[in-house]
Amino acid sequence: MIKPQVGIVMGSDSDLEIMNDAAIILTDLGLTYEVLVLSTHRAPEETAKYAKSAKNRGLKVIIAGAGGAAALPGSLASLTTLPVSGVPIETKTLGGVDSLYSIVSMPPGVPVATVGINSAKNAGILAAEIIAAGDSKVHSKISQYKQKIRQEVLAKNKRLQAFGAEKYLAQKQKT
Amino acid sequence: MIKPQVGIVMGSDSDLEIMNDAAIILTDLGLTYEVLVLSTHRAPEETAKYAKSAKNRGLKVIIAGAGGAAALPGSLASLTTLPVSGVPIETKTLGGVDSLYSIVSMPPGVPVATVGINSAKNAGILAAEIIAAGDSKVHSKISQYKQKIRQEVLAKNKRLQAFGAEKYLAQKQKT
Amino acid sequence: MIKPQVGIVMGSDSDLEIMNDAAIILTDLGLTYEVLVLSTHRAPEETAKYAKSAKNRGLKVIIAGAGGAAALPGSLASLTTLPVSGVPIETKTLGGVDSLYSIVSMPPGVPVATVGINSAKNAGILAAEIIAAGDSKVHSKISQYKQKIRQEVLAKNKRLQAFGAEKYLAQKQKT
Amino acid sequence: MIKPQVGIVMGSDSDLEIMNDAAIILTDLGLTYEVLVLSTHRAPEETAKYAKSAKNRGLKVIIAGAGGAAALPGSLASLTTLPVSGVPIETKTLGGVDSLYSIVSMPPGVPVATVGINSAKNAGILAAEIIAAGDSKVHSKISQYKQKIRQEVLAKNKRLQAFGAEKYLAQKQKT
Amino acid sequence: MIKPQVGIVMGSDSDLEIMNDAAIILTDLGLTYEVLVLSTHRAPEETAKYAKSAKNRGLKVIIAGAGGAAALPGSLASLTTLPVSGVPIETKTLGGVDSLYSIVSMPPGVPVATVGINSAKNAGILAAEIIAAGDSKVHSKISQYKQKIRQEVLAKNKRLQAFGAEKYLAQKQKT
Amino acid sequence: MIKPQVGIVMGSDSDLEIMNDAAIILTDLGLTYEVLVLSTHRAPEETAKYAKSAKNRGLKVIIAGAGGAAALPGSLASLTTLPVSGVPIETKTLGGVDSLYSIVSMPPGVPVATVGINSAKNAGILAAEIIAAGDSKVHSKISQYKQKIRQEVLAKNKRLQAFGAEKYLAQKQKT
Amino acid sequence: MIKPQVGIVMGSDSDLEIMNDAAIILTDLGLTYEVLVLSTHRAPEETAKYAKSAKNRGLKVIIAGAGGAAALPGSLASLTTLPVSGVPIETKTLGGVDSLYSIVSMPPGVPVATVGINSAKNAGILAAEIIAAGDSKVHSKISQYKQKIRQEVLAKNKRLQAFGAEKYLAQKQKT
Amino acid sequence: MIKPQVGIVMGSDSDLEIMNDAAIILTDLGLTYEVLVLSTHRAPEETAKYAKSAKNRGLKVIIAGAGGAAALPGSLASLTTLPVSGVPIETKTLGGVDSLYSIVSMPPGVPVATVGINSAKNAGILAAEIIAAGDSKVHSKISQYKQKIRQEVLAKNKRLQAFGAEKYLAQKQKT
Repeated sequence: MIKPQVGIVMGSDSDLEIMNDAAIILTDLGLTYEVLVLSTHRAPEETAKYAKSAKNRGLKVIIAGAGGAAALPGSLASLTTLPVSGVPIETKTLGGVDSLYSIVSMPPGVPVATVGINSAKNAGILAAEIIAAGDSKVHSKISQYKQKIRQEVLAKNKRLQAFGAEKYLAQKQKT
Repeated sequence: MIKPQVGIVMGSDSDLEIMNDAAIILTDLGLTYEVLVLSTHRAPEETAKYAKSAKNRGLKVIIAGAGGAAALPGSLASLTTLPVSGVPIETKTLGGVDSLYSIVSMPPGVPVATVGINSAKNAGILAAEIIAAGDSKVHSKISQYKQKIRQEVLAKNKRLQAFGAEKYLAQKQKT
Repeated sequence: MIKPQVGIVMGSDSDLEIMNDAAIILTDLGLTYEVLVLSTHRAPEETAKYAKSAKNRGLKVIIAGAGGAAALPGSLASLTTLPVSGVPIETKTLGGVDSLYSIVSMPPGVPVATVGINSAKNAGILAAEIIAAGDSKVHSKISQYKQKIRQEVLAKNKRLQAFGAEKYLAQKQKT
Repeated sequence: MIKPQVGIVMGSDSDLEIMNDAAIILTDLGLTYEVLVLSTHRAPEETAKYAKSAKNRGLKVIIAGAGGAAALPGSLASLTTLPVSGVPIETKTLGGVDSLYSIVSMPPGVPVATVGINSAKNAGILAAEIIAAGDSKVHSKISQYKQKIRQEVLAKNKRLQAFGAEKYLAQKQKT
Repeated sequence: MIKPQVGIVMGSDSDLEIMNDAAIILTDLGLTYEVLVLSTHRAPEETAKYAKSAKNRGLKVIIAGAGGAAALPGSLASLTTLPVSGVPIETKTLGGVDSLYSIVSMPPGVPVATVGINSAKNAGILAAEIIAAGDSKVHSKISQYKQKIRQEVLAKNKRLQAFGAEKYLAQKQKT
Repeated sequence: MIKPQVGIVMGSDSDLEIMNDAAIILTDLGLTYEVLVLSTHRAPEETAKYAKSAKNRGLKVIIAGAGGAAALPGSLASLTTLPVSGVPIETKTLGGVDSLYSIVSMPPGVPVATVGINSAKNAGILAAEIIAAGDSKVHSKISQYKQKIRQEVLAKNKRLQAFGAEKYLAQKQKT
Repeated sequence: MIKPQVGIVMGSDSDLEIMNDAAIILTDLGLTYEVLVLSTHRAPEETAKYAKSAKNRGLKVIIAGAGGAAALPGSLASLTTLPVSGVPIETKTLGGVDSLYSIVSMPPGVPVATVGINSAKNAGILAAEIIAAGDSKVHSKISQYKQKIRQEVLAKNKRLQAFGAEKYLAQKQKT
Repeated sequence: MIKPQVGIVMGSDSDLEIMNDAAIILTDLGLTYEVLVLSTHRAPEETAKYAKSAKNRGLKVIIAGAGGAAALPGSLASLTTLPVSGVPIETKTLGGVDSLYSIVSMPPGVPVATVGINSAKNAGILAAEIIAAGDSKVHSKISQYKQKIRQEVLAKNKRLQAFGAEKYLAQKQKT
């Protein structure tokens, strides 16, 4: 079995569809990971145990998604020296501002590397950038990825110049 | 030594001036308490131990104040069956909206009885109302207190009628 | 007829679907309750009467849900010494921030134990935690409930480890 | 003794400095008023009595200022058919957004004529505009007032043209 | 032709569905009105003319609805001594907070009696309350209306007591 | 080939449907334009090159739409002396407040002429107003356009007077 | 007398200290201007007259600052075809978010080129960029200005490298 | 000369007092750094050059602080594969919400590891956690630091237990 480099953890399985974006990009960038449902508020002891053993189990980064009083990223960060990236999950009534504030406003001493609301993909890329320091293969994957998203912008632009806005829009709406 | 009925806990000693309002009103209402600095993010294990032993130590209610990614009330609530009241502490840049959202937006299953930003006094009164169910002496103290704040309003009104707004204001600004 | 321990009150019958979550969890936790539509703004005198008689009628806690200028929880709290828990109901244009601010920002002397927007379930659990002080049967029901939600998290995690994220998601989307 | 036409009511005597602006402008516009401290939350019965007797006592408009969970204007409006104007009072941590939302978001059937945060002066003018319908003397006072504030703008502009911005600013900072 | 007592004005015909609520309640309360589309920003001169002639045309109150940089209520208020009630219309991206702030935050001297977002009905009732001062028939219609909404609450409550929450909800969801 | 006077640039082709409104109004006002997808964050060098060459290529104004951490308008403005108009694009979770703040809060020295969220049409009209200074034909087109939108308001009003609100609404809902 | 190219208008002379920043930078960039206090709400007719005559009087751009229900920029824009730049002025209780929303959220057809809260300087630079299209001397002044602010950054950086952060800070705090 | 491991960059030297917190903690944790003033908006080309050369110059992490339309962290992230940590700087009128949204809401593909408003210290610790992966000495310094902040909490608690809240507060206010 392959040892995971990144732990992708979330407060509820309703976050899984969003958080799976981290898993997908990590696969693309050649990294291994594990995916777990944990909860500061409902399974505090298992969550604490996970954080405390993470480094020894070989993880390099933890990505934690949570919504509302999103305590998960911060409570993991309090029990590990690994970098923890927090993904604020959109909430139904407050849009995720509650999640964002709960994750980003950490007290001095316990940082959480917060990404945008629902941006699990960016948390995955950030994890790869962190791991790339000691892994040149990951680094070159990231460089290629950055080239790819640049090429996508340029390709869209080229098509837009060729077709004009109206036709481009019409084609886009078909797909 | 008198056994405390209420635990007043806070994330930082910079919250003490605010949280002391809870202590003062509890004294007024004839209740015993203890005051502690704990921290989900900086002393997670001592905090967990406190929550887990609270009921057996005879506490009836926990009041927890915290600011920013204010995890303390929620993380205590996750480890006890006692009612936990959360006091969002004002923050310098966001005014305490971050603290409020972090405390009030708890997931289903783990309530925190949230009061207003900086309203430690109200958390104290709420604790007394909770304890009053089984303690008629506390109940009559609360009734007297409610009478007192009513009388204060009526007394102010009487003075305002006697002096008029201008004179009342002038006297008030002197004190 | 069974005497209710908890009063579940709401400002409009459009809040009933949300507020019924409190009734359901109270039933699960072995508590009795009554459900009423009242209104500070439209039926102020009946509402005042309800608050003033609540304690003598044997209620232990009042749960009040309201949206917008959500005056109900606070105006009940002003006329009783029982603990009042407020449930801010989501609003169409402001998402419930108006309800939250109207309920949580109570003046000194009159606390409302505020839970999250639409979190009637948590208000129910909080009511149970309050009543549990004098009722060991309720207390053990709460302990079991806390175990149950912990087990649910662990069970989800186990299935997630067994199936992996993709398969888990696919199964979830079917149901 | 002169019978008051307008009731100026506030939730706390800390609001008096702001609410006095209503009294001052009402005097300028030739209207009579009374000023009271009342409180939905701390003196609910006296407050209810005031609202219910207001019309019979000859009042034409009620102006109510309140901060935080600012229930006063709405609870007065629920017990009278007089127009009620609400003045949201600035709060320390939320700036008065809480007061504004609590006052303006009234349910269908019970309007509160809300003015800007701390704008007791505008509430006074609004009261005068309401009373002016049946009182041509008040109406002509309002017309004169509107001319006066227009002349003030024009006079400032004239001075600004005469002196230029720099000199105008220098003079202004002296006073 | 019947002379209108209330002018219902709006910035766009997309506001008509909301603003028609004012017309409906005014009819119920026995008042006459006119409905117009005007615009501070797109037809400024016609809008100014309307405001300036309103009083002479016999109007008693103007109700103005607008969304976004909702200048209409304020610009009407600047050109009339009639009371102007402003209805902030919900907006697609900001929910109507922009409309609310644009309408309520008027400078000293020019009040707008602001009601809740989309609350044209309350603006209608407020207009009736203002006109009722000089019209006892309108006053008694308002009293009856207040009784009616009170009875509706009590009737709902009675049905809720008879059926219980579950059955009440089931019936409600059918309709 | 016709030389473009206005550059319409956007951070993603998902913004094209909104940004095309600028293209449509520019055509109506007799102006030429080009439409491009660029990205400060994904194609920074091509974006910089575009900004630096814009003036020499004959552009008079740049319109830039972007969402979220909407850096595009500001980063174009940092590399050209042309006026840059920024269009904040609505975002899923924050409604576009993030885009608005990111575009409007520019540091001293580098202005972006910000329009409302999604208001690409207004950015187009602003561009025309800017170009009209040196082009009397464009100026008269703008005058005609302003007349047209005024006439539309008046025409709607006329129909509303003829039909009444109910019938007008009914007809509108059909279309 | 020199004919002004830019009109700097504000709703109150309390805005003059902020709005003077526009005058200062316009002088630096070699442009002429006039400074006026006007008010949509208190002097609506003079304000309308100003807007309608602005183009014929030779103005090229209007800069309008206003706070709260900041109607001035929009109401000027509704009566001229000149580009109007709006400066949201900070407010005491809402920080200027009210001003920003009131200025930026204009309806389709009437743009206001909004800059940041209190950013009168940027409004001045934007005016210069607009005028620079037909005036190469202004254009070269802007280019020089952009060079100057770049040089300032680089000079600060050089000093920071030379002194280190601590010493640089110490020197800065002295001045 | 010692090669820096971390680049601490900021948009203005007014951010230096805040950003110096990152420098101080990095020194404490045994890491080397450089401190620069750069600016996406005022010195875009030097900023781009810095980002592009950062990795080859041996940097492991970039910490970038910026306020308002805080483009600096994102524009650096767009031109490097190093992890970039963003520090939103408090702003005068919006408190730093603008900075936070501008930094955290990055598009997919270009993450910025955002910390709390003004939390440069946490950005420094995060940088250390990232570098610690390949540097056991740094790792043990972080472990010691985490112990230290834990001990500080426990020491404060011990003193609080010894002195009681009143005496503790009195002593604290003296210092």
